[in-house]
Amino acid sequence: MESKDMFYMKKALDLSLKGIGKTSPNPLVGAIIVKNGKIIGEGYHEYYGGPHAEVNAINNSHEDVEGSTIYVTLEPCSHYGKTPPCADLLVEKKIARAVVAMIDPNPKVAGKGISILMQNGIEVVTGVLEAEAQKINEIFLKFIREKKPFCILKTAMTLDGKIATSTGESMWITNEKSRHYVHELRNRVSGIMVGVNTIIKDDPSLTTRLKNGGTDATRIIVDSSLRIPPDSKVLSIDSDKKTIIATTDRADKQKIELLKGFNNVQVVITPEFDSKVDLSYLFDWLGSEGIDSVLVEGGSTLNFSIIERKLADKVVAFIAPKIIGGDEAKTPVGGKGFEHLKDAVSLKNIKISHFDDDIMIEAYVRKDS
Amino acid sequence: MESKDMFYMKKALDLSLKGIGKTSPNPLVGAIIVKNGKIIGEGYHEYYGGPHAEVNAINNSHEDVEGSTIYVTLEPCSHYGKTPPCADLLVEKKIARAVVAMIDPNPKVAGKGISILMQNGIEVVTGVLEAEAQKINEIFLKFIREKKPFCILKTAMTLDGKIATSTGESMWITNEKSRHYVHELRNRVSGIMVGVNTIIKDDPSLTTRLKNGGTDATRIIVDSSLRIPPDSKVLSIDSDKKTIIATTDRADKQKIELLKGFNNVQVVITPEFDSKVDLSYLFDWLGSEGIDSVLVEGGSTLNFSIIERKLADKVVAFIAPKIIGGDEAKTPVGGKGFEHLKDAVSLKNIKISHFDDDIMIEAYVRKDS
Repeated sequence: MESKDMFYMKKALDLSLKGIGKTSPNPLVGAIIVKNGKIIGEGYHEYYGGPHAEVNAINNSHEDVEGSTIYVTLEPCSHYGKTPPCADLLVEKKIARAVVAMIDPNPKVAGKGISILMQNGIEVVTGVLEAEAQKINEIFLKFIREKKPFCILKTAMTLDGKIATSTGESMWITNEKSRHYVHELRNRVSGIMVGVNTIIKDDPSLTTRLKNGGTDATRIIVDSSLRIPPDSKVLSIDSDKKTIIATTDRADKQKIELLKGFNNVQVVITPEFDSKVDLSYLFDWLGSEGIDSVLVEGGSTLNFSIIERKLADKVVAFIAPKIIGGDEAKTPVGGKGFEHLKDAVSLKNIKISHFDDDIMIEAYVRKDS
Repeated sequence: MESKDMFYMKKALDLSLKGIGKTSPNPLVGAIIVKNGKIIGEGYHEYYGGPHAEVNAINNSHEDVEGSTIYVTLEPCSHYGKTPPCADLLVEKKIARAVVAMIDPNPKVAGKGISILMQNGIEVVTGVLEAEAQKINEIFLKFIREKKPFCILKTAMTLDGKIATSTGESMWITNEKSRHYVHELRNRVSGIMVGVNTIIKDDPSLTTRLKNGGTDATRIIVDSSLRIPPDSKVLSIDSDKKTIIATTDRADKQKIELLKGFNNVQVVITPEFDSKVDLSYLFDWLGSEGIDSVLVEGGSTLNFSIIERKLADKVVAFIAPKIIGGDEAKTPVGGKGFEHLKDAVSLKNIKISHFDDDIMIEAYVRKDS
């Protein structure tokens, strides 16, 4: 691996991020074409079903790409999907060298793209900034392998572990910058999930509000006995994504019919687990619907069910530098809880950032815990 | 301020830390004597009542100190206390230049030491690494000004804000390195405080266990109705510091007599506040007894009382990368809690460290909050 390879791959990775919120459930990919030490073309996967990064980079090149090096953050595809195989295109365009960050885990590709390149005399280097590339596509990686949404559990609490005061006051625990970042998280995912108690208490709209618009996620309300108030914002919000209400057979049939009458609202009946919506079933179903990622925004009962059913992949915990106390104040993860410390869900790869005085801890769930 | 001044002052500050646990309620002070670009002597305030740092540095010098520069982390004293005034000694020894990190807030000194030096032709520079010096002596600074102990609230929780599981399991939330650091904290303070529930539940010894021994703190048990089991470890532990039981008039008189019979145990009756030990009264009394600092180690009821009575100066919060959930699981700060977010205690000067995967957040209480 040469240091210039890392330099250009970093650029390609940065470029890939431009697709955030638009490529789901397909990956974020960036490509850069370099010839005689100069960048002659660049491109990224801009939207779902659109041309791949390699195609855009080649089309955007202001010089003939023959004999050039292409840097691409994901293995070029080898199959006919929404677009023809990129590996064939690179051969046809006589690219001399391909530097690839990571192999495509999609079983339809999985090394076949690299094989095509090598069989046709293109020099191939793989694994350049692989860890960074895998992190950027953590959603895609999970979804392609397991057909289940990548699940991010987002919490926000005081330094003494409270998400609200004893009287339920929760606006706002965290500061404006932290709350803005939550909209960046929403922009990254295709689903956003809350429990019906959050709807009843806060009546949030659950849309993505960023300066440049941002992409709404499908709203998923977990509501085992269908208590959602018909005048809730999520039932009538102006959004290009729908609201899914997940409930059980215990739901009132008339209310189901009522909700089905709403524009852009879908009611899903799941089996029961512990007298509640079976979240594992729901996640599988969401996967089958092409939802590659879910941001779970609580409250504490839903959060524990997510943890208990081992559905969370990542935790993003905001901590505000405040202390409010209260035996009765709610905490980020409630429910029954684990009785024994040995059963605790353990986290790894901890990263700490901050938004002014708020602290953000990102961590991944140890799947063996 | 010259960069070499900062260089030597940093060395003097590092040296001052060697007195941790031994100088209370007097300050930590380090001194370095430099002549012709070489360190010729160094010293620190080693123990309460012992020679001051300047005296030790001069006595340890392997050359004549005449014409030298002394770096001292606290203004040389001007009064006869346990030892004669250091300012006079510096004049007598014909020190040419004195670089001082911070003025001594002790009203008996408070600039008078500097005046003596200047009146006698010694060149004086002050304020070199002042913020660092104030931080090292934060306990002394509070105590000398307010005659009340500097209060550190120590908590340890999971990333979802729990100090124990719903069944009360708490050993161990944090890892060994975090727990070891708590002993370093204990070594720094002259008092360590817990509520009687912690004694009943965990029966801790509350001693300081460090590789090189460490100094025990006076144990202070807050026990409003004197429920402490007579066989508790803190009542019969082998320690050179005593155990203080703070209770109220509601305590059983016979049990008071029983406890007074224990070696090394003192019972203190305080007025009641909210039917409990009046912690403000207790802190004032502890100050009058020369306790310059108290590490509060919970549980959640005592912690909220400390927060509510605005007694905490600093919070040291350990966060373990685990999730255990549970509506019934205890959190670091319980009690009634504040009803409104506007009443929350707000923290500033946040510092984040870690012990392997455990996170430690240190912060100071905003006194205007």
